[in-house]
Amino acid sequence: MQFATRVNKVMDSGLGALFAGAKENTISFAGGYPDPATFPQAAIDRAMRDELTARGDASLQYGGSSGAPDLRKWLAAQMTADGMPAAPDDILITQGAQQGIDLAARLFLEPGDGVVVEGPTYVGGLSAFDAYQPTYYEVPMTGDGMDLRALQKVLMQHSVKLIYTVPDFQNPTGVVMSEAKRRALVALANQYDVAIIEDSPYRWLRYSGSPIPPIKHFDTEGRVLFLGSFSKILAPGLRLGWLHAAPALMAALTALKGASDVESPHLNMNAVARYLTTNDFDQHLTQICDLYREKMTAMAEGLARALPACVHFDRPTGGFFLWLTFPEGFDAEAFMADHSLPDAHVAFVPSRILYASHQVKNAARLNFTSSTLTEIEAGTQALGAALTEALDATAKAASH
Amino acid sequence: MQFATRVNKVMDSGLGALFAGAKENTISFAGGYPDPATFPQAAIDRAMRDELTARGDASLQYGGSSGAPDLRKWLAAQMTADGMPAAPDDILITQGAQQGIDLAARLFLEPGDGVVVEGPTYVGGLSAFDAYQPTYYEVPMTGDGMDLRALQKVLMQHSVKLIYTVPDFQNPTGVVMSEAKRRALVALANQYDVAIIEDSPYRWLRYSGSPIPPIKHFDTEGRVLFLGSFSKILAPGLRLGWLHAAPALMAALTALKGASDVESPHLNMNAVARYLTTNDFDQHLTQICDLYREKMTAMAEGLARALPACVHFDRPTGGFFLWLTFPEGFDAEAFMADHSLPDAHVAFVPSRILYASHQVKNAARLNFTSSTLTEIEAGTQALGAALTEALDATAKAASH
Repeated sequence: MQFATRVNKVMDSGLGALFAGAKENTISFAGGYPDPATFPQAAIDRAMRDELTARGDASLQYGGSSGAPDLRKWLAAQMTADGMPAAPDDILITQGAQQGIDLAARLFLEPGDGVVVEGPTYVGGLSAFDAYQPTYYEVPMTGDGMDLRALQKVLMQHSVKLIYTVPDFQNPTGVVMSEAKRRALVALANQYDVAIIEDSPYRWLRYSGSPIPPIKHFDTEGRVLFLGSFSKILAPGLRLGWLHAAPALMAALTALKGASDVESPHLNMNAVARYLTTNDFDQHLTQICDLYREKMTAMAEGLARALPACVHFDRPTGGFFLWLTFPEGFDAEAFMADHSLPDAHVAFVPSRILYASHQVKNAARLNFTSSTLTEIEAGTQALGAALTEALDATAKAASH
Repeated sequence: MQFATRVNKVMDSGLGALFAGAKENTISFAGGYPDPATFPQAAIDRAMRDELTARGDASLQYGGSSGAPDLRKWLAAQMTADGMPAAPDDILITQGAQQGIDLAARLFLEPGDGVVVEGPTYVGGLSAFDAYQPTYYEVPMTGDGMDLRALQKVLMQHSVKLIYTVPDFQNPTGVVMSEAKRRALVALANQYDVAIIEDSPYRWLRYSGSPIPPIKHFDTEGRVLFLGSFSKILAPGLRLGWLHAAPALMAALTALKGASDVESPHLNMNAVARYLTTNDFDQHLTQICDLYREKMTAMAEGLARALPACVHFDRPTGGFFLWLTFPEGFDAEAFMADHSLPDAHVAFVPSRILYASHQVKNAARLNFTSSTLTEIEAGTQALGAALTEALDATAKAASH
């Protein structure tokens, strides 16, 4: 029984091995978990109960691959208000945004087809694409999103089917793509006949500044597939996300969803629709943003105090992550294995696995949402001390 | 933006067009829905509430691609009791059994690889495989399961990676594979180095006779992937199924699950585990079987009264479906479009789309679980009358 060739690729993320050395008392900045304090547990309980009482038969039954009409209606209104006009039929409910990536890849990719990814990018995006055996073209991130000159060069030289981007508070860098780049990206997609996956699970988690219209706002030819998720703004344990795409794509995407898993759980979809229409969701988002802004600030200030001057980071304006850049030649993975985990008891995600090319080693992703303020303070201090020591040792070794 | 070639295949099931002619007052024997009266709504409500109260933080959070430990533990014990010894780590929770088919296909299939399917087979199985562009080899069904001589001929002549079978109360024929064939099937798989997908969502819905050990019971080399589902025995709206496979396959399957949709909803998994351990599930199954036995009997007796003698069927001993065989040359699809839907107002699934080859037209699948006893009586009578008329007309036309 021989596995398909895609299997080796999918299994090769190396994430498991990376954290094998973590101990019980480790402070983890590695994950991407929301703070459970943000889960509106009582209101979800209420919505589930009311849903089971009011129409349990329908919610416990099959109900169609597109997803629950009430939830698609709420999302269509929300998308429209956010600058991406949508009818309920333009929305497909997915098993988190992850399944949206899988379905988009399934819709477009033959083995070997070109996919543009940001460098660095969301590691789960790479896993999803790996199953379809694409050829990756990595375009570097800059402070305002993808380097579009590098992208244009790729598009001129190679056949590309898909561009994958996380434009809002990118995982892992926290970077927001500028409005000018969003417009220009759509123009390039039109010019080179490429589809764009706009993966934006953090879009509504902004801690400062004003929102920028989504890439899909500038979409003139139905090329942008917008992916959203309730995992970061409601609760991951409900496993609900959505995909907003042009009518020309929707029949195929719905058929692919049906072939994958028939449909998402109608109980969850209906309960969440009920929750959203009977609670003040804007207020809920404001509370989450207040909590995460405080945590982000604590991490940024802790790092500013503790890090050696040669380690760089920008304060993110939203999302879950903060990105550290170490000096050239520094190996973040070796540092974590040799110093950060055993001595400082701090975990993070070293950069190598976040690049399709696996080439960049001197950076790291830190998550600030799942740790407590106390952990953030202690963890940044311990990480800073370990880094200072390691970088001093490197400098000494170099000067000898 | 060109779709991948798999898309046309997946969209080509033709199910939608088939039922476009159905009217409001149609009695549908076409679906595969459970009777909502079997949903233990109050107990599910209780389990959800208790779960949210007892450990809402964990149930609403991410929790790992393998699935909730409590549910995997319960299932491992259940599998073991049913003749398929399993540890919790041998169980992967899936988004219904449909995702189990998708993951098994994803694990083994390169485009063009050989897959054996039964003729007829589960239409959703074909959709799942279609996404991986296999070469189908169709092996006819007999009264005790797959024709193993035909299977052996295929295995001798072609390279096959997977055999897909629904051995218990097959969808669509209701046939149970004999114990002798189960043993022989495993021997053939061993001999020709093939994996078997044992898709068994109806296994615990037996209305007469004694259970036969699962194919996986006879599995000596870890070649059998057993798929189960809570959709038919608890509630489809929870979207939970499971996959029981050998340790050598489990790491890869779990990685593929993670790449597809990260994980199944932990709230649902934990609530179902709580339901299963705090309720008498055997009694629940007995109640379902009592209800469906009554419905099956009503349909069989209604058909026996109303059908012309030249239409054949066997009484199923379990499951959801009853299979009608019409005389050679009869076109069930044309009959449904021209007579059954417009005149009798009865819908069913004509056989053509249930064959990978799309060749067999003179048979039909009837579902007896989702209609009421009144509908079953009226529907079988109307169907019988329309069939008698149509077959008489054919006979008259032939004699002129």
